[in-house]
Amino acid sequence: MPFAQPHLAAPSALLTDLYQLTMLQGYFDHDLQDTAVFEFFARKLPGCRHFYLAAGLEQVLDYLEQLRFTPAELDWLSRQGLFKPAFLDYLGRLRFDGEVHAMAEGTPFFADEPILRITAPLPQAQLIESRLINLLHLQTLIASKAARIVQVAAGKRLVDFGLRRAHGAEAGLLAARASYLAGFDATATVLAGAQFGVPLAGTMAHSFVQAHLDEAQAFAHFAHSLPAAVVLLIDTYDTEAAAQKVVELAPQLAQAGIDIQGVRIDSGDLGVHARLVRAILDRGGLSQVSLFASGNVDEYLIQRLVEEGAPIDGYGVGTHLATSSDAPALDCAYKLQEYAGTPRRKRSEGKATWPGRKQVYRRYDADGLCLGDTLTSVDDSAEGQALIQPVMRQGRRLQPSPTLPQVREHTRQQLASLPPALRALQPADAYPVCIAPALHTLAAAADGLSGLG
Amino acid sequence: MPFAQPHLAAPSALLTDLYQLTMLQGYFDHDLQDTAVFEFFARKLPGCRHFYLAAGLEQVLDYLEQLRFTPAELDWLSRQGLFKPAFLDYLGRLRFDGEVHAMAEGTPFFADEPILRITAPLPQAQLIESRLINLLHLQTLIASKAARIVQVAAGKRLVDFGLRRAHGAEAGLLAARASYLAGFDATATVLAGAQFGVPLAGTMAHSFVQAHLDEAQAFAHFAHSLPAAVVLLIDTYDTEAAAQKVVELAPQLAQAGIDIQGVRIDSGDLGVHARLVRAILDRGGLSQVSLFASGNVDEYLIQRLVEEGAPIDGYGVGTHLATSSDAPALDCAYKLQEYAGTPRRKRSEGKATWPGRKQVYRRYDADGLCLGDTLTSVDDSAEGQALIQPVMRQGRRLQPSPTLPQVREHTRQQLASLPPALRALQPADAYPVCIAPALHTLAAAADGLSGLG
Repeated sequence: MPFAQPHLAAPSALLTDLYQLTMLQGYFDHDLQDTAVFEFFARKLPGCRHFYLAAGLEQVLDYLEQLRFTPAELDWLSRQGLFKPAFLDYLGRLRFDGEVHAMAEGTPFFADEPILRITAPLPQAQLIESRLINLLHLQTLIASKAARIVQVAAGKRLVDFGLRRAHGAEAGLLAARASYLAGFDATATVLAGAQFGVPLAGTMAHSFVQAHLDEAQAFAHFAHSLPAAVVLLIDTYDTEAAAQKVVELAPQLAQAGIDIQGVRIDSGDLGVHARLVRAILDRGGLSQVSLFASGNVDEYLIQRLVEEGAPIDGYGVGTHLATSSDAPALDCAYKLQEYAGTPRRKRSEGKATWPGRKQVYRRYDADGLCLGDTLTSVDDSAEGQALIQPVMRQGRRLQPSPTLPQVREHTRQQLASLPPALRALQPADAYPVCIAPALHTLAAAADGLSGLG
Repeated sequence: MPFAQPHLAAPSALLTDLYQLTMLQGYFDHDLQDTAVFEFFARKLPGCRHFYLAAGLEQVLDYLEQLRFTPAELDWLSRQGLFKPAFLDYLGRLRFDGEVHAMAEGTPFFADEPILRITAPLPQAQLIESRLINLLHLQTLIASKAARIVQVAAGKRLVDFGLRRAHGAEAGLLAARASYLAGFDATATVLAGAQFGVPLAGTMAHSFVQAHLDEAQAFAHFAHSLPAAVVLLIDTYDTEAAAQKVVELAPQLAQAGIDIQGVRIDSGDLGVHARLVRAILDRGGLSQVSLFASGNVDEYLIQRLVEEGAPIDGYGVGTHLATSSDAPALDCAYKLQEYAGTPRRKRSEGKATWPGRKQVYRRYDADGLCLGDTLTSVDDSAEGQALIQPVMRQGRRLQPSPTLPQVREHTRQQLASLPPALRALQPADAYPVCIAPALHTLAAAADGLSGLG
């Protein structure tokens, strides 16, 4: 059971960019308090991603519900000499009481498709930009990487080992959540078990072996101390010699009622060692002992090992997962699409956006495979399932969030609905996303409004 | 002035890998409580890094001083069914009371050189591994990337814009600290100002312009609201047209006693637009208005723009800085080097380590340029300055930490001492690090101890 209280505390409302506060001063002074509509979307996908997986909505909703400035924070702001007292009073009263529409977590999405829409008075919708992007970007990044690993792992057990090289505490914690959501089986990060109920897994480190002068004794000590979870790390000195020690140790442990569950290899050519170790274990009567591999593992290596038939039952994936190493950032944005009832559009070179409130419709074939999407205005309609749904009104969730296992099951179904070419690592044609005529019309109208028609 | 209290709270002691706790159960059961020595180091540098910059020590020391399990955390652990009650009692009493030796933050370092050594009872030194790596890895990663940007920026103003695409809250906050330490001038992340005293900078977003139907009115509103920091974003629609609007607005603002400090360009070919805009501003009598550029900026683009003589006075650097996008992880480790008075060594393929407590000596020429390093045992001696010094004893800092401006000045001097080829972006010969004979002798002895000599 997770803790009732999150143990990575909600960060301060000051976790934002300075320009949000200076713009809010401007909005306050000039009474720009009408309803604004912002949408979060990705501009384009890198070649190494055929789809993104929406994730992070749950933490965004938590953030919006908890957002407020403390007296100490306001006092600190007042001492910066930039802001007027009346504005800071107003900031102290500010809460998020707007609407949120979003794609469900675990839904695949593509370039230009919004996964979240904020409808709120302009200052509220503006202030939240930095943290909202920060949260959606991180988990979408990791879930999208994890989904690739899950797709090639062919059912092998996958464990997140990423905490140490994740970028800070929150990245480690949320990478565990995002990878579990995407189909990983467990994480080594204890706090993710406590906070989100992600199943935990772990073995031993080289230091445990090194602290003993005798490797076999290290194995015996570990097995007696953790009889419920005996996974022995066998590559500290000589992998195959250690596998033989495991074979020799097994009968003594069996007499004490202890089963060895698995061994882990963390270095060298994992496929070569796995074959040698599997043969040693099998010859020694330990065919039920599973073989777990780690060490610089990513989806390409797993795919190769799976294709080669390497006798590996599970993988620990660390750095490449937790940093999304081949694409450590998404080209994503949160942009004003409508203000005071009229659509708005940025036309910056290479960064122009589609204006107005949008919906994504997804069409499926008779077997439930995705055929293509239509991106259009909410005032338009199109064939298919409407993916963006209301989740928050007046700053409160419309219903309790799905549990993490529910999100994970939704993700599993969603991934299964993707065309096979998109689920593979090889280059693939882009998934078809049609921009409806209604959006072209709206864009022309928005350009006219800003004197650029 | 920073807050007295950090506003990104210390994360739970459960922010660790499960195997740290299972190993601690083993150490507890089998009385492995002798003194252990672990060192943190990088295995190798990627081609796109000629040096690393040590950073994160300050947060590691905070972590060590605050480390403890709360009753709620112990209760949660007890319900996982893995740990024995006597062990959990012991865990509740556990504090870090060991020693720390380290390189000063802001010191360049190279492959195999430890930047931090922990000397403590084995369970303490083991438990802290995950979070210690997590903290040192992140800030060293970002400071090392930032140093490259600082080296090519030729004194142009550099501002961290990375919060939104940093990997979570802590990554955004600590990237601001690490980049300032490495020579950046300011950050947009407000909390980094509050918590670390990093100078803040910010302009306006496109949404501020879009929320007005008239771009010039948006500029006027912003200037009147923030007269002390008028930097106007001019690329929402047509960059040069907006620059002309700035020229036309300036006299009205001057009558109200408001100076326009700068303009920002965030899209398109930054060099081309900068020239056009500079000419418009200069013709309009605004030669004192500075020109600030952002949008997918990294050290390669800055170097090119500087070399081309682009009239850009400063850069906002976001994603590439905050994710260290070309090298989003360091190949670093924290390894047991000695236990119970004898050196230990891991011999895993491709991951073998040098055993024992080590020191790094750095030699300089008459002009203060680094000539090369010697890595050796602490019991050996070598020519040069010893870089690893005691910073904590019995779990308490030996002296107050240097202030962040002091660390920044130290870093500036350290970077200036690097050979010019290492400060450039072009491929360079590796910096010479000599492994002293004493370490080879120690390695042979450690192999003998583990039966592999």
